[in-house]
Amino acid sequence: MTTPLRLGIAGLGTVGIGVVKIIRRQAALLEARTGRPVVISAVSARDASKDRGISLDRYAWENDPVALAVRDDVDVFVELMGGHEGPAKAATEAALAAGKDVVTANKALLAIHGQALAEQAEAKGQVIRFEAAVAGGIPVVKSLTEGLAGNEITRIMGVMNGTCNYILTQMQATGQGYNALFEECGKLGYLEADPNLDVGGIDAGHKLALLASIAFGTKPAFDRVQLEGIQRITLEDINQAADMGFRIKLLGVAQRTARGLEQRMSPCLVPANSPLGQLEGGTNMVVIEGDAVEQVVLRGPGAGEGPTASAVLGDICDLARGLRIATFGQPATGLQDIPAAQTGLPAPYYLRLALHDKPGALAKVAAALGDAAVSIDRMRQYSHSEPTAPVLIVTHKCTRATLDIALQALEASDVVDGTPVALRIEEL
Amino acid sequence: MTTPLRLGIAGLGTVGIGVVKIIRRQAALLEARTGRPVVISAVSARDASKDRGISLDRYAWENDPVALAVRDDVDVFVELMGGHEGPAKAATEAALAAGKDVVTANKALLAIHGQALAEQAEAKGQVIRFEAAVAGGIPVVKSLTEGLAGNEITRIMGVMNGTCNYILTQMQATGQGYNALFEECGKLGYLEADPNLDVGGIDAGHKLALLASIAFGTKPAFDRVQLEGIQRITLEDINQAADMGFRIKLLGVAQRTARGLEQRMSPCLVPANSPLGQLEGGTNMVVIEGDAVEQVVLRGPGAGEGPTASAVLGDICDLARGLRIATFGQPATGLQDIPAAQTGLPAPYYLRLALHDKPGALAKVAAALGDAAVSIDRMRQYSHSEPTAPVLIVTHKCTRATLDIALQALEASDVVDGTPVALRIEEL
Repeated sequence: MTTPLRLGIAGLGTVGIGVVKIIRRQAALLEARTGRPVVISAVSARDASKDRGISLDRYAWENDPVALAVRDDVDVFVELMGGHEGPAKAATEAALAAGKDVVTANKALLAIHGQALAEQAEAKGQVIRFEAAVAGGIPVVKSLTEGLAGNEITRIMGVMNGTCNYILTQMQATGQGYNALFEECGKLGYLEADPNLDVGGIDAGHKLALLASIAFGTKPAFDRVQLEGIQRITLEDINQAADMGFRIKLLGVAQRTARGLEQRMSPCLVPANSPLGQLEGGTNMVVIEGDAVEQVVLRGPGAGEGPTASAVLGDICDLARGLRIATFGQPATGLQDIPAAQTGLPAPYYLRLALHDKPGALAKVAAALGDAAVSIDRMRQYSHSEPTAPVLIVTHKCTRATLDIALQALEASDVVDGTPVALRIEEL
Repeated sequence: MTTPLRLGIAGLGTVGIGVVKIIRRQAALLEARTGRPVVISAVSARDASKDRGISLDRYAWENDPVALAVRDDVDVFVELMGGHEGPAKAATEAALAAGKDVVTANKALLAIHGQALAEQAEAKGQVIRFEAAVAGGIPVVKSLTEGLAGNEITRIMGVMNGTCNYILTQMQATGQGYNALFEECGKLGYLEADPNLDVGGIDAGHKLALLASIAFGTKPAFDRVQLEGIQRITLEDINQAADMGFRIKLLGVAQRTARGLEQRMSPCLVPANSPLGQLEGGTNMVVIEGDAVEQVVLRGPGAGEGPTASAVLGDICDLARGLRIATFGQPATGLQDIPAAQTGLPAPYYLRLALHDKPGALAKVAAALGDAAVSIDRMRQYSHSEPTAPVLIVTHKCTRATLDIALQALEASDVVDGTPVALRIEEL
């Protein structure tokens, strides 16, 4: 008789219930694969009386997730509540203090408190696993931490917020504007309670910070991720980008450069015929580049009951099989504290300006760019009926710092209306 | 002072030298990630005097890989020789008998002798790891065995021979025929010594058999893979498929059905706008479908020094970290022996016939299909200058067994010249 792996599951929303369902439905398969029964001892959620579609009577119930986390009949604390403070943090700390392993889907908690939690876990020989925190069902944490462990990672890129990718691809597909699709997402339940977590890039930024830590051996540092949301992207930007052979994606990019760690989550142009450019709807994609492997692309559902529960189960099966690894792939105490790169590597940029229609206006734009040493690859001015004319520019490669000088000059000039839109063109 | 992991590497071709280079270049990184030094004790190859571009003087040399495999200063035998009999098999068996773990890139050896080797390994508590045997740098064995362990796998598909995909995509891109591109691949060194391993689908079939074993908990059974090569694909097939919105790929498909295990490696039509359809050149792609995760797509380089060495290093790092798992994901003695499904699930088919140009010919074709209960979705007959007219047909869904009855009737008729081409249209 082998010893079962006993779980305590805190949080019985979509993902928590998905995990319970798999453990019931696939009990025999899980035991065959891991060599031992995987069982649930106890569960916890805010409301014990809520109908969740399945009976939970066979499990002990705890109102307090901290009480769940420290139960004697729990080997692994499965944290599926969310939130980077409050009960999720308290219960995770309590579980580690009580010598439990932790499996979590909580990207915010780890992106912000991951270093401290990893150190706490390692001090007692416990592990924290978080496959479900990044890119839903895609086994990207495992691929990066283990499968590609022989590589010096040179760049990580990813589309890791399905809602943003849905909005951006639906804008192009349906010709609707950002606001209409944002509203639609709200109705479809695709938005977080605070929608800025999605459209402001925060949620995807949490995920990027976790991958960057593993990739570059650095402390997770969400506060050093440069964040820019998709709220200012217009249908015109989408269509112009398409005309030039690009797609606009909320793209995370992390690189370790001589000037520091670069972590950006921002709308970027990518080639339409690249795997990232071809990614439609709510699907996620992560691109990993390493000195040996060149480029690996992972694609899959970024959210939803089944896919996220699949990731949680992957971690649980690892623990059942005795596969134990440091939280971010190497001892937390050895992770480096690298400053944020103040400016990213040079890239071409896409600019959109609203130009006041008066003689010499375009010349002033060209001069402002030239004065900052930003050279123009392509420029188009469109005919128009409004008092301002849309002007689109693709620059040659320059740094963002250089570009910002030109943008400030443009904004201060008397020929540009409002703030120009500037999107990086990420080379693949 | 931590104990180093000591390797014996047999085979110093492209991959072997790639592994040696990474272990030298990334010694510090590997030690940081695995917590211990990864070192090479000894190497072995056929010709000790050959210039391999790097000095191997610091390692002990063995002419005989069996002698290497059993050395006291070797913890892990790294088998990069290839071949499913002879020295590779003998040395692998010797290594396991001597209590060593094995890391191998040898798909043929494992597809044919994997069951016996896995049983031998498990009897002594040793492990065999083979990430590099399937799809080069893509961490697909790990993703399937570990990351997706919570899923009942419903289907595995893959383009896993870069040479075939190069030929097929170059036919479309350049308008050259199969023979010209086959010759070009020979000159570029893209073909195995026996080219039938590539273009006959054998190499990719080995890989499919390994993935199917993990996915479905079955004994690896290469002898039950239905193999069909790409040698009969014409430029006309490629162009017609493209006209209808498809691409032709040498596609591996494995499914466990009520009628048995289905393993096919054959040219198939896939939608041009799907990830598989968009895959160009020598790149590999594996699609994994599970009851919880829905669909995950992994894409990356299928061969080459760096990518294949990356996969070997992934396995080595796992062993250095103490991550040990059964060869095919569960105890080999528990793997099931499932008969091959005699006919696959129904699918639409693409047919190309050469029709003798005489009155009533097309009617006879339609009748032969109808008599076998194969119904026609689309049919085109082309104008022509030859004595036979090309006819292209897309059927509605039918089983291959049903289709074969129709194909036999067509071949036996007096209106069809030669053997019709029949390609499955794989639904994604």
